[in-house]
Amino acid sequence: MPTYSYNAPHLIEGVLAGNRRDLARTITLFESRNPDHQGIAAEVMRALSSHAGGALRIGITGVPGVGKSTFIESFGIHLVDRGHRVAVLAVDPSSRLSRGSIMGDKTRMEGLSRRDEAFIRPSPSGGTLGGVAARTREAMVACEAAGYDVILVETVGVGQSETTVKGMVDYFLLLMLAGAGDEIQGIKRGIMELADAVAITKSDGENRQAAERARSSYENALSLFSRERPVPVVTTSALDGEGLESLETILSDFYAEDKASGALGARRKKQQIAWLWELVEEGLMDRFKNAPKMSSLIDDMVSGVEKGEVFAGHAARRLLDRFSG
Amino acid sequence: MPTYSYNAPHLIEGVLAGNRRDLARTITLFESRNPDHQGIAAEVMRALSSHAGGALRIGITGVPGVGKSTFIESFGIHLVDRGHRVAVLAVDPSSRLSRGSIMGDKTRMEGLSRRDEAFIRPSPSGGTLGGVAARTREAMVACEAAGYDVILVETVGVGQSETTVKGMVDYFLLLMLAGAGDEIQGIKRGIMELADAVAITKSDGENRQAAERARSSYENALSLFSRERPVPVVTTSALDGEGLESLETILSDFYAEDKASGALGARRKKQQIAWLWELVEEGLMDRFKNAPKMSSLIDDMVSGVEKGEVFAGHAARRLLDRFSG
Repeated sequence: MPTYSYNAPHLIEGVLAGNRRDLARTITLFESRNPDHQGIAAEVMRALSSHAGGALRIGITGVPGVGKSTFIESFGIHLVDRGHRVAVLAVDPSSRLSRGSIMGDKTRMEGLSRRDEAFIRPSPSGGTLGGVAARTREAMVACEAAGYDVILVETVGVGQSETTVKGMVDYFLLLMLAGAGDEIQGIKRGIMELADAVAITKSDGENRQAAERARSSYENALSLFSRERPVPVVTTSALDGEGLESLETILSDFYAEDKASGALGARRKKQQIAWLWELVEEGLMDRFKNAPKMSSLIDDMVSGVEKGEVFAGHAARRLLDRFSG
Repeated sequence: MPTYSYNAPHLIEGVLAGNRRDLARTITLFESRNPDHQGIAAEVMRALSSHAGGALRIGITGVPGVGKSTFIESFGIHLVDRGHRVAVLAVDPSSRLSRGSIMGDKTRMEGLSRRDEAFIRPSPSGGTLGGVAARTREAMVACEAAGYDVILVETVGVGQSETTVKGMVDYFLLLMLAGAGDEIQGIKRGIMELADAVAITKSDGENRQAAERARSSYENALSLFSRERPVPVVTTSALDGEGLESLETILSDFYAEDKASGALGARRKKQQIAWLWELVEEGLMDRFKNAPKMSSLIDDMVSGVEKGEVFAGHAARRLLDRFSG
């Protein structure tokens, strides 16, 4: 495949003008692992950074089957109809491997993708969760520079990626199904903890009563544990649009309130600093694990600790001494 | 202060014989920062390690005011009366600073401390959470080698230390107060997530009904979120011993079940390996932050990211390059 040659000034101008093709190309540039692209990517990023930060950033998660794509499509269209420009991104570290990966198939958001005011981008594929998340953060900067004022970041709802996405969005929305309670066994208690708001999906037809019951029981449960701000629970339907307006109001009220109080800016600053240290930690561990002089000692120490023959504290000391020595 | 001189064979023999004074002295040795003590500490630790692992390890947390010391005292005495040997340790990174630190005052567990079958040791003081936790893990090894078959690890209930303690115990017990719901505002949702069992304290006299109501509402709430094993909620009273026997049964059933299935051994192995990597990570970050060549660049990058002038990804790359260069 010939190397595509990028033109930084052209891309920057295009993105700032809101050109979707240039935006897509810029994100592809950010995702590129071609060393020749690094310098130009850095240049474009620097230029766009100063135009970023203007969007309401919402993380969305829920177990497979909860109807995430359908929800995002209808919520996205609702927002576009209200005059917003909506970008949909994703963090799915499994996207290379599993066929069930989120948004692998754009046609699942066909209605939204046809709207000029919407931009949909599947998860960058491959690499570690940290790598995938870094690419998504960069894509978010580009989307904000292109004038999108709502960013929806979709994630898979089964593991670590939620915590990572929590670190890059302003609010986290958890999608849940109504029903006998069994279907939420898949949601880890830890994910519940991240939620700033909960939407019960598929509240239509015969399911409506069950959704209402689920709503009140989640609301009760959450009121036992929550801290600063109560976590609202809303029933929604992609069929008749139930709850979408309430959700929009809830989230934009949070946003306005936190902007006015300075909490939003403070939180974003904290997120950036935390992310900086995460990247440093990841980079250090990478270097440590891949240093040629380390590999056999790492194997020895891990197996010694596993067999209970070496105390972890001693193993760590020996490893660190070797690395610095 | 003259340096106390330790005799490794003597200490090892004493600890293995269950001598409490030698046990206390050994833990003091493990806590020592005197470089002259490192070699002998390592020798003692090596010898004791192979005799460790025989105790049921229980983490206990709850917000200040929940009656943690009182609970531990009565639960400890209950266990001793049933033929167990009980060690009480603590992880409290604040113990140097705050007067309200846990177990600063042994007299809070006067009855238990008078029992020959009990050993109580306050939190090691000073240092990072990681450092405090490492010392407590070492103390745990010594207590197990000394024949204690139940280890209670107390922690403060307000922050990171719970996650750390979760990584060193078999089960985590969360203490909660009955009441209007207001008092649990102090419990983070994340701590709830760690609980393998919940005990409502002070279920006596007029408080009994409220405790029962709290029990059923927590049980409901937890049933919505939990995964593998339901989280039992028990009402307890230090005054009349209510619930202590149930709790003992619940925890020892968990223990027997997990031992038989191999889940216990697998989990402990995983905890050790996870701890090894935590220590390595901590050590690497330490070296990174304290390297003379890093300090001014770290300041620059952090302030650049904070002001929004530098993208975190770029800052991390520059810092890592400097460190390796």
